[in-house]
Amino acid sequence: MSIERSPLALPFPALPAIAGVTPRVARAHYKTWDRCDLTFVTLDPGTSVAGVLTNSKCPSPEVEWCRKALVLGQARALVVNAGNSNAFTGNRGRAAVEAIAARTAGHLGCAPSDVFVASTGVIGVPLPIDKAEAGLDAAFAAEPACWEAAAETIMTTDTFAKAAVTTALVDGRTVNLIGIIKGSGMIAPDMATMLGFVFTDAAVAPEFLQAALSQANTATFSCITVDGDTSTSDTILAFATGQAGNTLLSDEDSDGADAFRAALADLCHQLALLVVRDGEGAQKLIEITVEGAESDRSAHRIAMSIANSPLVKTAIAGEDANWGRVVMAVGKAGEPAERDKLAIRFGATQVASGGLAVEGYDEAPVAKHLVGREIEIGVDLGLGEGRATVWTCDLTHGYISINADYRS
Amino acid sequence: MSIERSPLALPFPALPAIAGVTPRVARAHYKTWDRCDLTFVTLDPGTSVAGVLTNSKCPSPEVEWCRKALVLGQARALVVNAGNSNAFTGNRGRAAVEAIAARTAGHLGCAPSDVFVASTGVIGVPLPIDKAEAGLDAAFAAEPACWEAAAETIMTTDTFAKAAVTTALVDGRTVNLIGIIKGSGMIAPDMATMLGFVFTDAAVAPEFLQAALSQANTATFSCITVDGDTSTSDTILAFATGQAGNTLLSDEDSDGADAFRAALADLCHQLALLVVRDGEGAQKLIEITVEGAESDRSAHRIAMSIANSPLVKTAIAGEDANWGRVVMAVGKAGEPAERDKLAIRFGATQVASGGLAVEGYDEAPVAKHLVGREIEIGVDLGLGEGRATVWTCDLTHGYISINADYRS
Repeated sequence: MSIERSPLALPFPALPAIAGVTPRVARAHYKTWDRCDLTFVTLDPGTSVAGVLTNSKCPSPEVEWCRKALVLGQARALVVNAGNSNAFTGNRGRAAVEAIAARTAGHLGCAPSDVFVASTGVIGVPLPIDKAEAGLDAAFAAEPACWEAAAETIMTTDTFAKAAVTTALVDGRTVNLIGIIKGSGMIAPDMATMLGFVFTDAAVAPEFLQAALSQANTATFSCITVDGDTSTSDTILAFATGQAGNTLLSDEDSDGADAFRAALADLCHQLALLVVRDGEGAQKLIEITVEGAESDRSAHRIAMSIANSPLVKTAIAGEDANWGRVVMAVGKAGEPAERDKLAIRFGATQVASGGLAVEGYDEAPVAKHLVGREIEIGVDLGLGEGRATVWTCDLTHGYISINADYRS
Repeated sequence: MSIERSPLALPFPALPAIAGVTPRVARAHYKTWDRCDLTFVTLDPGTSVAGVLTNSKCPSPEVEWCRKALVLGQARALVVNAGNSNAFTGNRGRAAVEAIAARTAGHLGCAPSDVFVASTGVIGVPLPIDKAEAGLDAAFAAEPACWEAAAETIMTTDTFAKAAVTTALVDGRTVNLIGIIKGSGMIAPDMATMLGFVFTDAAVAPEFLQAALSQANTATFSCITVDGDTSTSDTILAFATGQAGNTLLSDEDSDGADAFRAALADLCHQLALLVVRDGEGAQKLIEITVEGAESDRSAHRIAMSIANSPLVKTAIAGEDANWGRVVMAVGKAGEPAERDKLAIRFGATQVASGGLAVEGYDEAPVAKHLVGREIEIGVDLGLGEGRATVWTCDLTHGYISINADYRS
């Protein structure tokens, strides 16, 4: 099975080196494929870490491991396995994670709890410990890799390697933030998303790093969906090596805290949208903004109801200004809404307002908007000040082909 | 666009006449099609009525009309329009419903509130009053129609006419119950579903008819989903003419009340499954049973999470025993679940238990089960006594073709 590169793909950006962070890749042969599938990132002593993890009630042992290790707030290594999620594998899965952490700790002379592990791929097959250990040994002995190689190595059904970069001026010093991410199906993160990794040379206390990451997550990874399905393994980790020379960002009142938070939010926004751009079968990127809701939370729920509606997503795939399906999705969300106050736009064109179609609206700009790659749907509920924006992609034959036509 | 008859279709059953009920059909020309699209059912004086209607926050004016009229508990006519749902049409839509009720009341010499109206089709276009009135007049003048003609006349994207029949022994007399239903997409009824109409010659007080219908709905129409999308117009109405000669069923302690309730539940079960069998693009009927949950409600939510998961539905379409996707759907439901107590079966074969794959399970019977038309998925959470069964269909290229490849 070969899947074409997403038409929404972006070129891989130029990424700066992050002082204190060294990526390496290796072949662990988790599947019978000829590619690297183990990513091993070493982090200098003094690196802070924060994370957001899946809300799934059936998380992978990797997620449970990270959740525990995050309490300590420090990291020396990140190991990412592609091709096997190790989820739903009982004690053997837990043993695999422990073995990876122990082997890595042995190489680096650190505590196992300083090692963060994430895996992605098939559910239900225990990660083979011998392959993981051999892969780790190979990676440890390898030359450092470029970030593009690392971003490729964490991919599964992704059609392009994904990374983002930004900077912030903190305390008079420019700090760098970069991130890599993978994900294209099983995407409806409930709190966190996919596997995504952020690295910065800023000096940031773990508590503040966690606060800034959680805040960024709320407006980015928690606002995207491909198919409404939430992975057992969703993981975002942020690592801060502290080598940029800024005074430690210890809380929101620190000099430069706002700039760092804004930069981290921008980076997470870029990364989240890259995942939607690689949504399985995606031909169009859809931005849905709901305004006038009773609360931001209510607006978010309505926006996600629209974003997860198969009928809305297939209408956009068909370039059909079927705003009736948007009304349907608003109505089924279960949130406060009054039909007779509802207004809907596609792109910049109002198509319905006050509970009925705008008479004689100009269909030409709507049709032109819908043939494009980036689609905007706006809903105004006319009830209050609540507002939310979410992102999704269209639902096409490609999604069915990827998930039904080929056996796993 | 021509859509093939669903491979899951059942033949139209032989239906008995229901004393006091007379169906007629006519061409109202709501669309440019050469078929009947207006159904007009007259009900003798003394007919009780009950109903369950969509929970959509943006309901059609028909739904609002029926909700009000149901309070009075009596009916003389049912009018069903196909090809235009009249939803989201503001005052003009409300005026159309009022005009239909008034015209019908004029023909029959009854109150407008004795007339029940339901419409299905495109959202956002006011139902043309002139066409509705001319159609009504034509129907009133027409010969009575057979039930198959009525079931065909209420169809939109349905690929086969749907009806069910049963009887109950009430108070020493056999009473007849029949129903017709339409629906194939935008199916995730939240309290009620689609357009479905039940007729019985039993004598049943409106309050008890409502109680029995609401109870039946909970285990039938509320347990099916095609695409997770909830219509603005979902309507189930039950009419009881009282001409079977039984003593009035006034409450649950009446003689024969249990038999009537069981028969109504059986009829609703048959009707609900017919809708799933005509799910857009459906190739397989999927029954999902969740046991061992903390409560029936929790079991229902988990079962619906599985039934609405695009990844589970595409796996079944691909005849792939991908139980990892079932684990994912359990995990995302947000209900109590413990990975290490979870057991999953396909058909009669246990494929996972105790938090991991059953080692060396026999794949042959699973593969044989998955190539069939009727698929069973069983999940045991191992936590409590909660139990639920729901029904859905697979997600195929057919769904995309119906909803994306052709413009509305």
